[in-house]
Amino acid sequence: MIRDRYASCIQACNACAIACEHCAASCLREEHAGHMALCIRTDRDCADLCRLAALLMARDSPLADEICRLCAIACQACAEACAKHDHDHCQECAQACQRCVVECEAMAKAA
Amino acid sequence: MIRDRYASCIQACNACAIACEHCAASCLREEHAGHMALCIRTDRDCADLCRLAALLMARDSPLADEICRLCAIACQACAEACAKHDHDHCQECAQACQRCVVECEAMAKAA
Amino acid sequence: MIRDRYASCIQACNACAIACEHCAASCLREEHAGHMALCIRTDRDCADLCRLAALLMARDSPLADEICRLCAIACQACAEACAKHDHDHCQECAQACQRCVVECEAMAKAA
Amino acid sequence: MIRDRYASCIQACNACAIACEHCAASCLREEHAGHMALCIRTDRDCADLCRLAALLMARDSPLADEICRLCAIACQACAEACAKHDHDHCQECAQACQRCVVECEAMAKAA
Repeated sequence: MIRDRYASCIQACNACAIACEHCAASCLREEHAGHMALCIRTDRDCADLCRLAALLMARDSPLADEICRLCAIACQACAEACAKHDHDHCQECAQACQRCVVECEAMAKAA
Repeated sequence: MIRDRYASCIQACNACAIACEHCAASCLREEHAGHMALCIRTDRDCADLCRLAALLMARDSPLADEICRLCAIACQACAEACAKHDHDHCQECAQACQRCVVECEAMAKAA
Repeated sequence: MIRDRYASCIQACNACAIACEHCAASCLREEHAGHMALCIRTDRDCADLCRLAALLMARDSPLADEICRLCAIACQACAEACAKHDHDHCQECAQACQRCVVECEAMAKAA
Repeated sequence: MIRDRYASCIQACNACAIACEHCAASCLREEHAGHMALCIRTDRDCADLCRLAALLMARDSPLADEICRLCAIACQACAEACAKHDHDHCQECAQACQRCVVECEAMAKAA
């Protein structure tokens, strides 16, 4: 069993990574993809940080809490960028990011 | 929204990646880690293939189905290696791998 | 020592992944980022396939040759998309992709 | 062109990730794999941090310097664990880690 203290944060990170990847890919298909540049950029960093955070928590790595701290920063930036756009994929991504900020900040503080 | 055809396979891949990472880390903490070498080795390949498969499906990439085909091979090998050990983390991992084989093979066939 | 048969392919994959990531990030900063959507999309898949191929070769994984086959497909698509643009980052990326196609196809055939 | 300030650190991170993956896989094939558990554990975290650091630098991400700071911690731990073993793969890994510590610490300080 994954350690209890990590379970909900791993879920939030995985869900956020998928939402970010989906949002970035969908932004690239929008008519005005150029307007979505900041959204795409923050999606990519956020997805990659979330994926590594989930990995290090699953391993119970000594760096798990530190990566959660960075991950919360990436999620916050992405939540702000995505919240400005009305596309469903952006709004869903902003929500996944906000949940992940809460989970990752709690993990970072518990360190 | 993630495309319906991918949703359950993405879930299975993410769950399997986490189970594999957790299993590998737990195997390394067992008294006889040397006996777990094959299990650890297949865990790592399986986790990395699952992570990439989830990513490419979330993006609706043209390579999504192909990576699912490879992922099913990695999951099958890992399921067989883990099923031989009684540790909870190995048994849980074998089950997550088997579910992921089914999902990934269905995806690969649908291509 | 990394196995001799993998050394140059690992180098090509790492160089290609970096070129793709740099190209995608630079495309997003171009005035007409919308025109670069296909380039950015192929950059991302190519970078992620290259990164996993390098990883599996470094491990001497039984799936190394199979992932190289997929990686060559991703590199070919990216080389074609990037070659159409005059930006330095696109031209450099196209060249890195073409080298990686050659290396990965040789690996896949040797399997 | 990748920004000059990142070029040598990206090289060091990629080289270190490959050395770590190779070392972990080789440790698992040693007769006394159980004695190598700490080495394998630190290899894996180090490889994953190095890979993400190279990615974020290639993108010129705002989080590049922060991830380099974490990466230096992972490399230091891995260098210490690997230096204790006489296997060629461990000694080569320790050296790659030490070079990467220097590069990543310089990047983190420059932030």
